[in-house]
Amino acid sequence: MATALVANGDFSSGKSPDPVTGRFAAVYSEVQNSRLDHSLPLPSVLQKPFKVVAGPPSSAAGNPDEIAKLFPCLFGQPSAMLVPGDSAELSSSQSLKIGVVLSGGQAPGGHNVISGVFDYLQSRCKGSTLYGFRGGPAGIMKCKYVVLTPEYIYPYRNQGGFDMICSGRDKIETPEQFKQAEETAKKLDLDGLVVIGGDDSNTNACLLAENFRSKNLKARVIGCPKTIDGDLKSKEVPISFGFDTACKIYAEMIGNVMIDARSTGKYYHFVRLMGRAASHITLECALQTHPNITLIGEEVAAKQQTLKNVTDYIVDAICKRAELGYNYGVILIPEGLIDFIPEVQQLIAELNEILAHEVVDEGGAWKKKLKVESLQLFELLPPAIQEQLMLERDPHGNVQVAKIETEKMLIQMVETELEHRKQMGAYKDQFKGQSHFFGYEGRCGMPSNFDSTYCYALGFAAGALLHSGKTGLISSVGNLAAPVEEWTVGGTALTSLMDVERRHGKFKPVIKKAMVELDGAPFKKFASMREEWALNNRYISPGPIQFIGPVADKVNHTLLLELGIHA
Amino acid sequence: MATALVANGDFSSGKSPDPVTGRFAAVYSEVQNSRLDHSLPLPSVLQKPFKVVAGPPSSAAGNPDEIAKLFPCLFGQPSAMLVPGDSAELSSSQSLKIGVVLSGGQAPGGHNVISGVFDYLQSRCKGSTLYGFRGGPAGIMKCKYVVLTPEYIYPYRNQGGFDMICSGRDKIETPEQFKQAEETAKKLDLDGLVVIGGDDSNTNACLLAENFRSKNLKARVIGCPKTIDGDLKSKEVPISFGFDTACKIYAEMIGNVMIDARSTGKYYHFVRLMGRAASHITLECALQTHPNITLIGEEVAAKQQTLKNVTDYIVDAICKRAELGYNYGVILIPEGLIDFIPEVQQLIAELNEILAHEVVDEGGAWKKKLKVESLQLFELLPPAIQEQLMLERDPHGNVQVAKIETEKMLIQMVETELEHRKQMGAYKDQFKGQSHFFGYEGRCGMPSNFDSTYCYALGFAAGALLHSGKTGLISSVGNLAAPVEEWTVGGTALTSLMDVERRHGKFKPVIKKAMVELDGAPFKKFASMREEWALNNRYISPGPIQFIGPVADKVNHTLLLELGIHA
Repeated sequence: MATALVANGDFSSGKSPDPVTGRFAAVYSEVQNSRLDHSLPLPSVLQKPFKVVAGPPSSAAGNPDEIAKLFPCLFGQPSAMLVPGDSAELSSSQSLKIGVVLSGGQAPGGHNVISGVFDYLQSRCKGSTLYGFRGGPAGIMKCKYVVLTPEYIYPYRNQGGFDMICSGRDKIETPEQFKQAEETAKKLDLDGLVVIGGDDSNTNACLLAENFRSKNLKARVIGCPKTIDGDLKSKEVPISFGFDTACKIYAEMIGNVMIDARSTGKYYHFVRLMGRAASHITLECALQTHPNITLIGEEVAAKQQTLKNVTDYIVDAICKRAELGYNYGVILIPEGLIDFIPEVQQLIAELNEILAHEVVDEGGAWKKKLKVESLQLFELLPPAIQEQLMLERDPHGNVQVAKIETEKMLIQMVETELEHRKQMGAYKDQFKGQSHFFGYEGRCGMPSNFDSTYCYALGFAAGALLHSGKTGLISSVGNLAAPVEEWTVGGTALTSLMDVERRHGKFKPVIKKAMVELDGAPFKKFASMREEWALNNRYISPGPIQFIGPVADKVNHTLLLELGIHA
Repeated sequence: MATALVANGDFSSGKSPDPVTGRFAAVYSEVQNSRLDHSLPLPSVLQKPFKVVAGPPSSAAGNPDEIAKLFPCLFGQPSAMLVPGDSAELSSSQSLKIGVVLSGGQAPGGHNVISGVFDYLQSRCKGSTLYGFRGGPAGIMKCKYVVLTPEYIYPYRNQGGFDMICSGRDKIETPEQFKQAEETAKKLDLDGLVVIGGDDSNTNACLLAENFRSKNLKARVIGCPKTIDGDLKSKEVPISFGFDTACKIYAEMIGNVMIDARSTGKYYHFVRLMGRAASHITLECALQTHPNITLIGEEVAAKQQTLKNVTDYIVDAICKRAELGYNYGVILIPEGLIDFIPEVQQLIAELNEILAHEVVDEGGAWKKKLKVESLQLFELLPPAIQEQLMLERDPHGNVQVAKIETEKMLIQMVETELEHRKQMGAYKDQFKGQSHFFGYEGRCGMPSNFDSTYCYALGFAAGALLHSGKTGLISSVGNLAAPVEEWTVGGTALTSLMDVERRHGKFKPVIKKAMVELDGAPFKKFASMREEWALNNRYISPGPIQFIGPVADKVNHTLLLELGIHA
């Protein structure tokens, strides 16, 4: 397998690192090498001549009047759909200058989006140039880029990470920053830009598209739906890329921990999973592995639960399981859980306020500034969590929820409550909690076959949309339950996904995060089975992602259920 | 794939759990199902008639005179080796009653050892009975067992975990406990017992063998080398099972984190890895992934390093990397690190003493009992670690090293030292540490093809050794660098692996843990490359374990290097 790279020019020597990424291509693992030449099927519409047809005019996800004001050039754009046929505007003799940027946190498959854009240009717009902006949107503003070539891209095919051109979290927001982006577009004579990112980055992409259009720049902007969190989706964008792989990696680990729990018979494993705003990852992992207890943030919020409610819910299950002779279990917790608990939100808001304006004295006099309920809650929390709530602030003065070890907090609260029940004679066992956080190890895994193929199609779609002169759309690939050949390819107006939020007295456009819907098929399926999982042990161990063989092409439950399959 | 189980009797219904394990066989993942019928090749010597030949008499790893006194019946036994040929003593008409027990922590492949013993008996000793003792050695003492049948065993083939019969950490130590074991052996009319465990459990197995022999019981005892830690090995036992799989699972996660580190460019990931006594896992993971910094406990101990030395070593590398423009990296830390640091051992010993005898006052007057150097070290530690050192005690009054979050301690100490260097102008970047602990998720993973095959052969070997009347041996399968057909099969005298330790004025036999040897091939290879890895980024991402295809049969580096392959 080690020869796969040696045939490919500069990357084969492995003697000096690539100046941009520091990557030595020759030091690939066997699996990495085996993935390089994994062939990617394309939807049939992308294999032949196609034309782009427009759907009906679009509106917005909310407040269409405000969105129309914010996007005077772009509001109301129809969706675009690729269909077989010949097209005058898609001239193959036209060479394009396109930029691509990775924005925000990593998600498996990003490299394949870039490969898809590149291969589209190679096959349909000969002589085109693809610029990879380095380090995220800052690369656009500073005009830091690399010209992507087949040799440059090849070693990243089907590989995890964003290290081909790296990513960043900067935003193009201020008039000066928009000006910098314009200058880069002019300097490179850009025909288009592909922004691979989450909800914020795609909102930004649309603002950039609007800006370029209003200034009569020729550069168009197309977004691509990226986030392992799975909260950027709509009717036409059935899933964000990376979710499939990340969930499978977490589910592999959860399944292993489950088998461990059952083999040992004495630990409760509290597993916190990445995914801050929405609980899709936790829900999907539950559907894949059947844990005893799963907390879904959206449900906690809908039921207005308190931290005590959540603790009691866990403790009740532990006590019932003890009666059945099970003194072990696995509990899934979404990273953003405490963000969903109204009383905790209130406490955090008060703490943010106090910390921004007061000196926090060691004696604790500052606590008098808390409301009674918030003080009670604060005093209920384990000291380590109190400390985390007091110390960890982001540059905006907010608590960094991701750094709060919710799983450890819950273990301590459960311990205390079980001690209480023991005294009341309602529990006799010895509780041992074991905490886990699965996060970073999922963001940069090697993309599953689904993410590899889906991303490649998203990239092709982005290329086709730019080629046909579209702007302000998000690449959308649909009909995903069907074989790849039958997948649909097109673009959805970014403005149609938007609503406004009022910030500092101004309306700001935002793509609404797609939260777990409590009446959606994935949650309903979970809700119909969780009682059974709680008391009986229905653990499933998904095992490591397989890239070949009959199990390699399986897709996540959330997508299938949302598409109405095996519901 | 879901049909694989349906053909197999009781386990197929999935409607009611197995009473022992609570397992519903029907809720298997696709990968679990696909593994059930994975065929296991056998060494050719096990495929045909064989006889057992004896090697020269054995001695002990140390203090042979004391070992001879402790094992008067067994000391000096030769190794046994299976060779092709006919054998009078291996009558196929003989039916045996054999017990099997899983002892201690989980390791991938344990189920396959049991499958191997079972299949040996089925094919060579028709009409035999295999008893699975439940919950570890306690199952022997309490005579808690299940009669293993093909239907019972089938769903566990090539599956991770020890949940077929579960495990436990009890030991058969006191005269009463030995008596209980004897009673079970008599009650079940046992011809033999297979003990699947680590160094302690195999020491116990040998004591049990000696005991049975001295009481003229017919039951023989054969051990099997199990531990993910990789520290139970010798010339004839090249590797303990589970090490291969666990390292591959950790290496998958480390590889993912590396790609994440490079993509983001702003975090130092401190990864603590399971493996308390020896650093084999950390060393193997380093060889698989090429981290920037790797701490090997045995080297730290050999160099008599202090915590300050270790911190400086990390900080020096971070500063050098900063000069090269790299403000990120990955650092591997063995779980048992602080156990290897002489000054920390001293501090912990003093703390154990103080906590056992004194009241620890809040004012800190108790600290005066510490020696000056220990007090200095204690004051140097981050408060959270001070707390962990004070609070977490096992039933014997010792610090539970596994619960000390060494990775977080090092992050804080590195932070402090970098702050210092910043003030001196020797460092300019912004350091951000991210901590990880990879442990439980590796112990119960699905066994790799190597562990699956190796364990099956170990089980077959244990069956053959019992069949030929051997006792006090550990199942040994060798020539592992060759194709499976050429693997050698035999048994090694457990007494030959032993030395004595003096405890409470008495000699106790112990199998010496195989530590990382600083002049061994794995460490030397690592040492020859680590400078390169520290400064240049030579990260390798091994990806998820593959079960089919050309990369599925690859074996860990440690084993190959120790066997003299690709050194």
